[in-house]
Amino acid sequence: MIVTRRIRCQTQGNNHVLDLTGRLAQEVAASGVRHGLVVAFVTGSTAGLTTIEDEPGLVADLKDLLDRLVPREAPYRHNRTEGDQNGHSHLRAALIGPSLVVPVEGGRMTLGAWQQVVLVDCDVRPRAREVVVQVMGEE
Amino acid sequence: MIVTRRIRCQTQGNNHVLDLTGRLAQEVAASGVRHGLVVAFVTGSTAGLTTIEDEPGLVADLKDLLDRLVPREAPYRHNRTEGDQNGHSHLRAALIGPSLVVPVEGGRMTLGAWQQVVLVDCDVRPRAREVVVQVMGEE
Amino acid sequence: MIVTRRIRCQTQGNNHVLDLTGRLAQEVAASGVRHGLVVAFVTGSTAGLTTIEDEPGLVADLKDLLDRLVPREAPYRHNRTEGDQNGHSHLRAALIGPSLVVPVEGGRMTLGAWQQVVLVDCDVRPRAREVVVQVMGEE
Repeated sequence: MIVTRRIRCQTQGNNHVLDLTGRLAQEVAASGVRHGLVVAFVTGSTAGLTTIEDEPGLVADLKDLLDRLVPREAPYRHNRTEGDQNGHSHLRAALIGPSLVVPVEGGRMTLGAWQQVVLVDCDVRPRAREVVVQVMGEE
Repeated sequence: MIVTRRIRCQTQGNNHVLDLTGRLAQEVAASGVRHGLVVAFVTGSTAGLTTIEDEPGLVADLKDLLDRLVPREAPYRHNRTEGDQNGHSHLRAALIGPSLVVPVEGGRMTLGAWQQVVLVDCDVRPRAREVVVQVMGEE
Repeated sequence: MIVTRRIRCQTQGNNHVLDLTGRLAQEVAASGVRHGLVVAFVTGSTAGLTTIEDEPGLVADLKDLLDRLVPREAPYRHNRTEGDQNGHSHLRAALIGPSLVVPVEGGRMTLGAWQQVVLVDCDVRPRAREVVVQVMGEE
């Protein structure tokens, strides 16, 4: 059994961290799959998916970390050749990665209590995002 | 065919790198799946999964790298607001990521000879960890 | 339905970024799977897989970023104990990660228009690489 849906969401860009756990849980429940896995995949090259405790202090810490490891203001070739200002956005997204797989048991994802699935939008402006959610398994 | 198990292990925290390859291989063999994939997923938000050559020098290098990229002693908001001392642990785990997928052929994972699946426990204290192992495929 | 193939490719090492999107798309098409997922997994511990816009400026930026975050010339224990000179290669690969999962709909991967699947070869010399491609799903 395979069910594929799209979650559409609006971000503010600039390392906006968006908790998708509730919507993923809804898609898993709606799929009818009780035992299997869920794949989340963000379409686009300036956002990534990971898990983190979605707590405001930590979300701010993650933004600071990305700003420090991959600064916005470095002389990226991408910005010169493409006329964009989001070289850092692409690099951050490539580091975080676009896909995540979570096992499903008893119709629920096997996440920890303080472990949320989040979209990190690294682009420099608000974006309408699409996350492909695929549930695969048995009833 | 879908088989889901849990690997329980004890870590020392503080970037303890634990080789799970042997136990994953056992679960793959026990599942009866000859052709398919195995998902490993660590429950909790202060540990990650990746592959590395499990060699003591390199394990020490990985710890040094994490200490340098995401220092323990920075003024993380998480530590102030939550009364924890593990802001860096959460950030390291979010960078590494909680899930890994490895194809299975002939009942074995398609790992390289020097490529081990490891848990990196970034928390600041010893932890009992649970890794969900899901084997999906055909006999 | 599960189809597993191997993509063989030659890299130049030293952060060579190789676009695999076309070859993955061919494998998906050849598999006959119209709805499901594709797993890509690189065998070996000195290369990783991610997605990025495969644009020469950005590829150069990614190389610079890896050189800065995980410098080649640091005193890695791996280099002393193993007689290798690729401690940084292993660490970069562990950060990027070896596996990627992309949903498939209508026989096509759900990638963005500027989102390519790339192999990043972090080793210090040209390498013949093998990427396991597994397509799982229904016709």
